[in-house]
Amino acid sequence: MDTKVWPPLPKEGLLPMYFAACPTRQVLDRIGDKWSVLVIGLLAGETLRFSQLKRCIDGISQKMLTQTLRHLERDGLIERTLYAEVPPRVEYALTPLGASLGGLIQALQQWADENIGEVTAAQARYDARAEE
Amino acid sequence: MDTKVWPPLPKEGLLPMYFAACPTRQVLDRIGDKWSVLVIGLLAGETLRFSQLKRCIDGISQKMLTQTLRHLERDGLIERTLYAEVPPRVEYALTPLGASLGGLIQALQQWADENIGEVTAAQARYDARAEE
Repeated sequence: MDTKVWPPLPKEGLLPMYFAACPTRQVLDRIGDKWSVLVIGLLAGETLRFSQLKRCIDGISQKMLTQTLRHLERDGLIERTLYAEVPPRVEYALTPLGASLGGLIQALQQWADENIGEVTAAQARYDARAEE
Repeated sequence: MDTKVWPPLPKEGLLPMYFAACPTRQVLDRIGDKWSVLVIGLLAGETLRFSQLKRCIDGISQKMLTQTLRHLERDGLIERTLYAEVPPRVEYALTPLGASLGGLIQALQQWADENIGEVTAAQARYDARAEE
């Protein structure tokens, strides 16, 4: 989708994100952020309210959740719907763009869940070698 | 792989990473980091030397690349091989664990590359609304 023409990098066929100025880098950082992954993973299944998201993401502060939701909304990945009830109800859902990312995010979560044992074992081995 | 039993969260069936104390969260943050994604994406194709990685990742500092490689090595995702030549040659490659993540990372990069136009358009719309 990137129509800008980038100068050649030392290696052919690299994606534009390998250039410092490519906006894809910032998006990559955003969607890889731990809180964004947890929010998108939850919304990949259903529409949720702020309080439901907050209760499901143990340890996230009100401020951090608000900020994460605002960033994801700005990126066009989630949409916020306000229902004019008393008290007002606000719901969050993935947009079609967000849904296209949702499956990848869930696969990443699955990978992390399945391999965390191997990762922590590797970390322990590395730290033991460093202390020798 | 997580054998610890976590207390119930408000929603059934959530992965352990939804708990603040679950180590999976830190791993998630690491592998989602922009620099890690760019390094893993490159090494998914081939074994590379430090200088090759540095030249391919436009804008990364020597210090940041060193740190990123060290973290990924500690996590058991990449391995560093030192060839006792003059001058010494150091190569980096994905471990089998890293390779199991490599495909997911490349899919994420592909998604970002294909959808960056839609994301930046959404950001522009959001910012225009905010200024109204």
